This record gives sequence, C-alpha cells and structure tokens, in this order.
Amino acid sequence: MQTTSVHGPQYEHLWSRILGGSFLYCNILAFKAMHCGIRKFTVAKVWKTINVCPLLSQATLSLLREIKGPTGICSIKGKRNQNLRGKLQKAGRNMSPKITTELLRQLRQVMKTSKYVTEPIQAYIVPSGDAHQSENIAPCDCRRAFISGFDGSAGTAIITEQKAAMWTDGRYFLQAAQQMDSNWTLMKMGLKDTPTQEDWLVSVLPEGSKVGVDPFIIPADQWKRMSKALKSAGHVLVPVKENLIDAIWVDRPQRPCKPLMTLDLSYTGIGWKEKIAALRAKMVERKVLWFVVTALDEVAWLLNLRGSDVEYNPVFFAYAVIGTDTIRLFISGDRMADPSTREHLLLDSALEAEFKIQVVPYESVLTELQAICVGLSPKEKVWLSDKASYALTEAVPKAHRYLTPYTPICIAKAVKNTVEAEGMRRAHIKDAVALCELFNWLEKEVMKGSVTEISAADKAEEFRSQQNGFVDLSFATISSTGPNGAIIHYKPVPETNRALSGNEIYLLDSGAQYKDGTTDVTRTMHFGTPSAYEKECFTYVLKGHIAVSAAIFPNGTKGHLLDSFARSALWDCGLDYLHGTGHGVGCFLNVHEGPCGISYKTFADEPLEAGMIISDEPGYYEDESFGIRIENVVLVVPAKTKYNFCNRGSLTFEPLTLVPIQTKMISVPLLTQKECDWVNDYHRKCREVIGAELKSQGRHEALQWLIRETEPITKMH
Amino acid sequence: MQTTSVHGPQYEHLWSRILGGSFLYCNILAFKAMHCGIRKFTVAKVWKTINVCPLLSQATLSLLREIKGPTGICSIKGKRNQNLRGKLQKAGRNMSPKITTELLRQLRQVMKTSKYVTEPIQAYIVPSGDAHQSENIAPCDCRRAFISGFDGSAGTAIITEQKAAMWTDGRYFLQAAQQMDSNWTLMKMGLKDTPTQEDWLVSVLPEGSKVGVDPFIIPADQWKRMSKALKSAGHVLVPVKENLIDAIWVDRPQRPCKPLMTLDLSYTGIGWKEKIAALRAKMVERKVLWFVVTALDEVAWLLNLRGSDVEYNPVFFAYAVIGTDTIRLFISGDRMADPSTREHLLLDSALEAEFKIQVVPYESVLTELQAICVGLSPKEKVWLSDKASYALTEAVPKAHRYLTPYTPICIAKAVKNTVEAEGMRRAHIKDAVALCELFNWLEKEVMKGSVTEISAADKAEEFRSQQNGFVDLSFATISSTGPNGAIIHYKPVPETNRALSGNEIYLLDSGAQYKDGTTDVTRTMHFGTPSAYEKECFTYVLKGHIAVSAAIFPNGTKGHLLDSFARSALWDCGLDYLHGTGHGVGCFLNVHEGPCGISYKTFADEPLEAGMIISDEPGYYEDESFGIRIENVVLVVPAKTKYNFCNRGSLTFEPLTLVPIQTKMISVPLLTQKECDWVNDYHRKCREVIGAELKSQGRHEALQWLIRETEPITKMH
Repeated sequence: MQTTSVHGPQYEHLWSRILGGSFLYCNILAFKAMHCGIRKFTVAKVWKTINVCPLLSQATLSLLREIKGPTGICSIKGKRNQNLRGKLQKAGRNMSPKITTELLRQLRQVMKTSKYVTEPIQAYIVPSGDAHQSENIAPCDCRRAFISGFDGSAGTAIITEQKAAMWTDGRYFLQAAQQMDSNWTLMKMGLKDTPTQEDWLVSVLPEGSKVGVDPFIIPADQWKRMSKALKSAGHVLVPVKENLIDAIWVDRPQRPCKPLMTLDLSYTGIGWKEKIAALRAKMVERKVLWFVVTALDEVAWLLNLRGSDVEYNPVFFAYAVIGTDTIRLFISGDRMADPSTREHLLLDSALEAEFKIQVVPYESVLTELQAICVGLSPKEKVWLSDKASYALTEAVPKAHRYLTPYTPICIAKAVKNTVEAEGMRRAHIKDAVALCELFNWLEKEVMKGSVTEISAADKAEEFRSQQNGFVDLSFATISSTGPNGAIIHYKPVPETNRALSGNEIYLLDSGAQYKDGTTDVTRTMHFGTPSAYEKECFTYVLKGHIAVSAAIFPNGTKGHLLDSFARSALWDCGLDYLHGTGHGVGCFLNVHEGPCGISYKTFADEPLEAGMIISDEPGYYEDESFGIRIENVVLVVPAKTKYNFCNRGSLTFEPLTLVPIQTKMISVPLLTQKECDWVNDYHRKCREVIGAELKSQGRHEALQWLIRETEPITKMH
Repeated sequence: MQTTSVHGPQYEHLWSRILGGSFLYCNILAFKAMHCGIRKFTVAKVWKTINVCPLLSQATLSLLREIKGPTGICSIKGKRNQNLRGKLQKAGRNMSPKITTELLRQLRQVMKTSKYVTEPIQAYIVPSGDAHQSENIAPCDCRRAFISGFDGSAGTAIITEQKAAMWTDGRYFLQAAQQMDSNWTLMKMGLKDTPTQEDWLVSVLPEGSKVGVDPFIIPADQWKRMSKALKSAGHVLVPVKENLIDAIWVDRPQRPCKPLMTLDLSYTGIGWKEKIAALRAKMVERKVLWFVVTALDEVAWLLNLRGSDVEYNPVFFAYAVIGTDTIRLFISGDRMADPSTREHLLLDSALEAEFKIQVVPYESVLTELQAICVGLSPKEKVWLSDKASYALTEAVPKAHRYLTPYTPICIAKAVKNTVEAEGMRRAHIKDAVALCELFNWLEKEVMKGSVTEISAADKAEEFRSQQNGFVDLSFATISSTGPNGAIIHYKPVPETNRALSGNEIYLLDSGAQYKDGTTDVTRTMHFGTPSAYEKECFTYVLKGHIAVSAAIFPNGTKGHLLDSFARSALWDCGLDYLHGTGHGVGCFLNVHEGPCGISYKTFADEPLEAGMIISDEPGYYEDESFGIRIENVVLVVPAKTKYNFCNRGSLTFEPLTLVPIQTKMISVPLLTQKECDWVNDYHRKCREVIGAELKSQGRHEALQWLIRETEPITKMH
C-alpha cells in the first residue's frame, strides 16, 4: 500500500491539469476531500475514483493510465519513470484557457429563467468565497473558478447579458490571463484606469437593471456598498436564492461531509459547556439574546470539534445559533450519528436544558434564524459578525441587529489557555524535530544535485508525518530556491521547480496540523557560501525578527504598533518588504486567524494579550535573485520590567518555534551585543529542548546536526 | 501706553472670573476679540469696555476699579500691588458653579415655542464646537459653556424637559463638577457605567420624542449616528434652524470680524490663483463639479489670507465654494472693504472669469449651496469633507455628495513648499533666540526664588514678542514645575502657580505665530541637581525623541508607524506616556493640523511626504512628581540610504527647532554612541545657526549661555 506516491505538493499541479484546471485547490488533498471521502487512501482507491471522474478528458485519462502502469500502483518517481514525468510536465506546461462559451450561454439562460429568478436579471455577480467567509474554500465552493477557468485565490466575476469580466489583483494578472478565454475581460485591480465593479456595472447596464448575487456568498458590508452604488444609478441589487452557477454546474462536487474529530480537555483545557457559558456571559453584558456563529473555525473551537472539510484547515461545515438557554447546531445530519461525537456533545445524556444541543440540518439555518427573529420583542438583539453573509444578516431585522467586527468567540479563541499553549509547545517541538531531520538530510543531498524544491517539500512532509499526532499540513509548502524565493506566495510546480544547489539561497516556509497544535515556520539557508550582500540582507532581517521577538510593550498594545520594529534595520539601509510581519495562529485550527497580528496594513486588530499566539516573520526579497524570511511562531507572555508601567503590566514574546537559524548567513559585526546574546540564548534553548527530543526519538544524526548548528556566535571587539 | 500689563496667561483666570466663568477662552486675548475688536489695545480701552459689560457683578466691578487705580492704567505687578494680587487670587480660588436654573427654564421655554421650532422638541443637544469644526472656538460659539457653566474644551450638553446632562472625559471630571450647579448631571465618559448620549436619551425620553440640534454645529457623521440610534427607538432627531442657546443668550458676544492680513508670495510661495487651479485639477481628476471649503484654516490657506477671529489660530470666519469656473467667498462683508485685501484678491481687476471672486455674506452659504444643488445634472458631484456640518452636507442631495476624510486642500496645505519651509526655518530661529534669552534669564532668576510658572510664561512671551514678525502665541503656554509637569494639558493659573526652584524639574511647552511660520517647542530642565531617576527617565525620553528624529523610512510610510520608535526605550523599562508623539504643524496657521501625525491612536493619517512638518514630542509623566517632554518641530526631508528602496526613495526628519536640550539631564551611559553623536550634531547646529542670529541681534549674554549649553557630551569607554 503506497500512501505517499501521489501525495505532496509536487503533484498538485498535475492533478489540477488532470481535473481540468478549473478548481481552486485541485491538488491531491482537495481531490481526496472531493472524491474519495477519505483521509488515508491508497493509490488504487484514488485511481478508481479518477476512472469515473466525469471531468477528465480521454487524453488525460490515457496519460494517467500510463502513469498507473500495469501494477495498479501509481509511481512517477525514480529513473524508470523519467519519461512519464516529462510527458506530464509537458502536459502541465501547456496551460490553455478554459473554454467557457457554453457555460456562459447556460448561465445567461438561467439568469432569465423564472425557476431561478422572479424577474430576469441583467447581471450576475460571482464572488470568491463560501458562506462562512473562509480563507480556504472547498471545491464545491469554487464557483468563480468553474465559470471562468481562473482559479487564483482572489477574484470576482460579473456576467452580464453581453459581457463577462473578472476583477483580480496584481498577484494574478498573468495567471488569470492564461486561464480565461476570450469571453472574459480581465479587470486589473490597483491599476489607475481599471473601473470598480460598481462603476463598470453602471457603465454597461441598461437602465433600471437588476443585478443578482447569492446572498449567502456576499458579506453584508460588500452587499451594502454595491447595493448603494447601483441604487444611486437607478439599478437594483437582488438576492438570488438558488446559486445560478450551481444550477448549471452539472458535476459540481458534493459539499464535503467528513467525519468529525472530538477534542477532550487534555487538548482544549476548557469544555464546550464552559465556552458556551462564557459566551452567554458576554451576551448578557452586551444585552443580546442570540448569537449566530458563522465562521467555521469559531464553530469548531466552540464545540471542541475538528473536521477536514476544507484543505489545511481542520474545520467542518456548520453554523451554530446560541440562545440564552438553547443551542442549535446546523450540520449535515449523518455526522451526528458517530457515537464518540454524540458522547462528546452529550446528545444522549440527561443534562441541563440550556446545554442541550438541538441538531438541525445545515441548510435550514436561514429559516430557523428567521423564525427566531419573528419572536423577538422590540429591544431584543441578535449578535452577528459584521462579516457574516448578507443572507443571515438580512434575516435579522435592522432594529434587532448587533454587529461587531470581532466576535467574542474570535477573541476568546485567540487567547490560548495553558493547556492549549502546552499543546502548541509540544507541536512545535515535534515540528522542529522534523525540520532538523530535513535540514540534516538536505545538507547531505543538495550537493549531489538530486534535490528539487518539490522533493524538498515532500521530504519535509514525510518527516512531519512521522511525528505523533500529525494530521495534515497547515498550508501549501513554500519551498523556493534562488529567484523563486523572491515570489512571496510561491508554490513549486513542475514548470518552475528548481534544483537546490550550493549557489543559491533556499527558503522553506512550511507548517503542519498536529492534534496538539498548528505550526508555521520559515528558515532561509545557504548550502554553499553566501555572498556578503546576501549575508548583509539576512542579518537585517534577523535584526528585525529579534526586535519584534524581544520587544517589551505595555498591556493593551496593538500588534500593528510593533510592525516598524521589524523593518527598522532594513529601512536604515533602504530595504523593505511588502508584507505584514505576523498573523494570529490557531491551536489545531486555521494557521491564519484574527483578531491580532503585526502589520502596517491592519488597523482594526485587537490589543495583544498574554496567551495569544502570532507569527514573527520579517523578510527581504530581491527580485529575480533571492528571498529571505525568518519566521517563528511566538507566544505572548508577561514581561518583567524595572518599573512595570505603574502596575499596568507588560508583555513580550516567547518563541514556540525552536529551529536553528543558520549562523553561516549572519554577518556578526552587524549585530549588537544584545542581538548576539539573543541568538545564542535562542540556540541554547533549541539545543536543550529539541536536542532532548531528538535523543529520545533516537535521531542521532539530526542531533549532531542540531549541536553543530547551535554553536554560539561571537562578536569580535 | 501699557499694552502688556494685563496681557499673558497669568491673567487668564482672573478675566475668566470677572466675566462670570462661563466662557471657554475668557482670557485677555479672547476678551479683546470679543469686546474690543482690536489687536493692539490699551488698558484704558479695555477698561472702558469692562465698565459697560453686563456680565460683571458689582463686586467684581469694584474690585476691578481698585486694580485700575486712579491713573486709569491697570497694573498689578510689583510690590505696590501685592495686596491687590492677593485679593484677586482669592477671588479666583472661590470657584463657584454657574447658576443655570433661569437659563434652563428659558431654554425649555423656547424648546416649545413655535417661533423657533415647528413642533415642540423634548430634548436639545448642545455640542462643543463651531460650524467649521475648529479646535479653538470664538467666545460667541461657547454655547455649551454658557448654558452649563462648564468651559472645558470638550463636552456635550443635552437638555430635556426634566433633566440636563453633560458628557465629558476624564480630563474634565473635576472641573465640570465644580463649574456646574445641581441642575446638571455629569456623565463621566470612559467609565463603564456611563450611558452613551443615545442610550441616555432613549432611557429618559417619552415615546415618539423629537430631539433638536443645530445642524450647523453637529458634524454629519455624528448626526448620522445619533439619528440612527434615536430612530431605532422610535424617536426622531430634528435640525433646529435657529440656535436655541442664541435665542436666550441676551448678551451673546458678536461673531469676531477682525481685519484680514494678506500674505504675498514671499510668504506663501504659491499664489491663490495657482492654488485654486491645482484644486480644480483635483476636482477634474475626481470628476466633481463643486468643492465646499468649510475648515477655517483651509479657507485662509487657499486664499493666502490670515485673520485673528479665533485665539491662537490666525484664521477668520468664512466659507468658500469653488466651482469649475466660479469662486464664491462667504465672509462678513465689511472686511472686503480694505484696499489691500481687495488688491490681493484682485476684486477690482480685470481677470479671467474663472478667478473672479464673488463675495457673498457669510450667512448665506446654506442657501447658495442649496441653489447650486438644484441646478445639478444627475451625475454631477459636490465635494465636502466628511467632517463638514450636517447642515451643509444635507444641502447636497445624497446622490451628488462626494465626501472624503481629508480634502485636497488639507493635503496640499500639509506639504510645505520651499518658501513656506524657509519661512518655518526663520520662525524657528527667532523662536530659539527668544528661548535662549529666556533660559539664560531663568538660570539667573530662578535661584532667587522670584520666578513662577506664570511669570516664566510671561517672560517667554515677552522675549518672543521682541522678535520680528511676531503675531501671537500659537497656543496657551504650558509652564509647569514639579508635580504640575505631570498634568499633560496644564496651564498655570493663580491657584496652581508654583515658584520655579532648584529642586524641581521645569517643563515649558510653548510656541508662537510669526508671519513666517508657527512654532511649538518643549524643553525640560533642572536648575539644581536632578536625581538619578529623573535623569534616567529624561534619557529614555531623549532616546525616543532621537529614534523618531533620526528614523529613516520608505516613501509612503504613515506617521503612526513611527510611534513605537519613540516609546521603545521607555517600554523596555516599563515606562510609557499616554499621548501621541507628534502632530502636523501649520505654516503661520493652526499649530495642530492634519492629515499627518505620529500616534498610536491615529489610524486615518495620510502618508508622510517630503515637505510635511510635524512635531516629535515623546514624554514621561510621574504623577504628583514631575513631567518630562522633549519636543522639536521637524521637517520631512528625503534621506540617502545605501540601497534606496529600489528607487522608491526614502525620508527622514530635519529638526527645525534649534534649542539646546539640557545635557545636565542626560545620563550619558544610557545613550548609544549613535545617540551621543546625534546630540552633539544637533547642538553643533544650534550653536552655529542660533549663535549667528544671537550675535547679529547683539544678544551676547544669551550667546554665552548657548555656547555653554551646547558643549559636546562624551561617552566613557
């Protein structure tokens, strides 16, 4: 049974081609989610599904059969399959646009079909995103990719009777142009002459038009803006109940409905009853009667459940509506049949009425919420995130709405309790073990010329999957060498895959989901001799990393106030990086979570609190040359200061990530003595904590590597 | 002719008492503005006005007659008047609340009088502020102070049929409680149990109430919030055309209408026609047909005119409405009679039609704007600040409104051209001369025990007024010693006045309006031997000051990203300060101006640009002990860096303020070598530039002081 041979980022692009290039996350993991309904899988099983997949052309099917070979075991590794790999890579390179003429004809048909719309609509908006405003979405929600062919992570399609236009940002101009056919006009956001969606609509619509959108997919604030603009030009934005893409998407994948995983107190620290009681206390404080949980990670956190409906994010499709003495969980029914889930949620136990969970079908959330609102007395309020869908927001009459940018669940979830923090610590120790193994392996293999970005990423996953409690990666691995490192959101695919060498900087940004916690770490290294300029840049980035990590700041400080600390050393020399410095990290949940972070762009972040966990990841990117990033996940902890802010108290960070920072890349004279001490203290801790774990796992070679890599550095005087 | 004897901050409180304690700015300057209509005045003239002032009680009148003395020249200085000073100070201390029973009865009467309101209103809101959202307001606009007695700078009064309530923040809890009688309930903002104005109104109003407010005084965004909250509770917010406070304020001062000052190109660098052409270019870019200038400093800047209608701010009451080929200036008429103003504005010249200024009465702005809007075609827009009054905003139908947080004038005004920057430089040189004189004088006088906070502030003004082009102070001088220094917005009054001594830290935050530019400088000093702790704190503040002043950052950086640089050294030891680090400074305009600044609170600031001028003023305040602040005004200038941000370019600051920083207060070992160098470089420049000016002004003693105070410091190794 081979479980890894078609597994890993290097096959993502291949699968994407095979499946028609029309899905947002058509790599093998998404494929599993979509077609196999299983997490552990065999190639034979996957193959079986591929054989019946209606999306595959005859050509790709026969190509696949060739790969599969007579044994029924798929393998394209090794010398034997060089030829096949070539064919596949060639197939991958011939990226041709999706032909959408027929699909658009069908869509325009349903736009005037009374089965779907009460009156014909003259335009239909297809946003990215799902009904929960998730960052990663399931294949069934990749409607914009389906209708247009463009499967970048951000983009909005608008189809009128005559035209079809796609708005996306600079990251995707090239990709969108390649993936879309001539039916589509690409609207390059951020360029001066590009009209906004509203302005464009107003310029092309006939007088008094109706513009439709799925009210579940569009967030309430976006609806408001669009509706206002259309109204002032004499048009009207209308909610179209049934999604019109779904209406024409014959072989649309099913919404994933994977089994749930229950987390006991040894992982969560707090039971779900306690969490609901705390939420209700917040509701009483704000005088609201109902709370609607719409974000998937909030439902998962609240109920101490995890799922695998969305790639990389251990969440499941559900809503929850919490009353002062009722709990409604909207979830596709059969998942509640599992005995351990039933036991976890006490579904069959006699318990206080206010903790009795009513399980309701996922699809009925709107009608149930409407029914709740019918019964409200004048001053009774319903609490929703202001990012919730228009459909759910609109279900609550204006006078009863209580909207906040961050929900109390989002804020509570961000502050990890001691059990969660311990879990995160354990996860990071295991993750460091995997990376020590990887880096030790790379040092030996790279000089042989046999390691590529893809195989390195693969190897990282292999080492991680050997660790206890490993569940999945936490995001698509960024494995990049040389010029590829300068592409901040790079993901290696066969066409761009480079061999690691002794002449280029290598950047690896990767992470995993363990049952104890979520990791996210970036290390940048050189396997030969870095240039003075590369070392100089690396050292500035390191100084920035240390400036944030060692910062002391009063309680109540918002993360965005620390962003410039990470840039100061770079700025002094006229260098900068165009991304934020840190994001919140979930505990066995989304690797990106609110409400805190460190960014020059984020203004609405909540103050940092002890127990919050964020990343610290400054970088520097030299176009067409190299990329540098040094990322640790850090825990916000109380600090000791001489004067303690008049007892207001203060905070600092404790690194959870304990992976050596390559000292070969450091230009030591550029460091202050304090910074030198920080590096040596950090490496001492890596050696102690990870060394002990490597020893107990019997990984002696990696241990030797760790000891070598954590030798103290010395500043000459 | 004595023009200074009742002039200066030390008499402010006295005048305030004399005039009934009911004005926001009842110091002598406001008094001049209100009653004398003149800027240069004699005591005899002032006295004449006082004698007929209906607000004075017989007791204060006879006290004043005593001060005046037989000569008709007012003088309370010197030994001879010690007794009188005592009496006046005693009168000042007996701060008694204003009795408002009769006023409230009258107000409630007009709230149901059909002459003023179409239907009776059940509540009336009296905000602070004027129709231009000015920070400083004229006496005639101090309506909230008139009705309540509370004259702090921030507060909103709401009067219902039964109740009267005042919302103000922590700075003013004590003062408001002292100044208001028992008719009033004090609503302490920021405390947990204090209801918002909306919630309070909803809790006290009978069903279906009407709440009135002057639509000229309430900004559009505040109207919107209040109106929404009232509506959702079944009430309605109504605009009341005539201000109801004015209706009962029998002896309300006239709106100031002082002569204007014209500024030629040698001060402004750009003529008003060019400024209007540039504004019109922005209007074309944004596709708007009309621009409404509502902020007083924007009108003044646009037309290269200055006034003295509001204390400390060289502005005048006016609006302007700029069309694509028309200019309307709304201003009280007689000011346009002045020949130099007529010439400056080319009122009698033959010139291009689009630069012909139509002078229209100040009061007709609303009706003119309404008339303009009647003639608008569907897509034609009118541009307003989103902080403009509800009255003007509402005059523009929603579909025609174009609102932005910062107007193009605000942004253009912030970026000083070379002529303006040179003017600011000159102003700061003169200001530094005055302060060198002052500090030299203080060093000699303080140890004699004869200098108080008030007399020091007075002396500062005296030295400044000797400088060429001096017009006024730019804000009320903060002269504070010992514990008074810890009160951030302290203003010395007789009851709090302390003598300067060799045992306490002295903080002086002061500035002036010169015809060339506006200054604002804070220095903190010790005339004896500072304690180790005081030096430690001073040094952290200095490190923060330097960190901002020497910061290098890429073009496009917003000021708020630099705020933490100013705090880092303090934070490391558990110290902080609870105010922003810098504000924009006008050029012979408001000492506080948008749209840039350095603050942890400001999020909507515009990016810093070369030519902008801001203050750099970190501090530290030890309650009941001392205050430290080091403030320079700095100019944003291009920086040279090693790698120059890929030609994006970079910025840093150049200090315009050139006043020595007391090295006695520095704990040199706490400075890095770089910081030492900064101090020595700064002092070298002070010695060069200010030294030359002191020499040319023949101020030899001050020059000797400067040379002494700018001796280099040395870090021991």
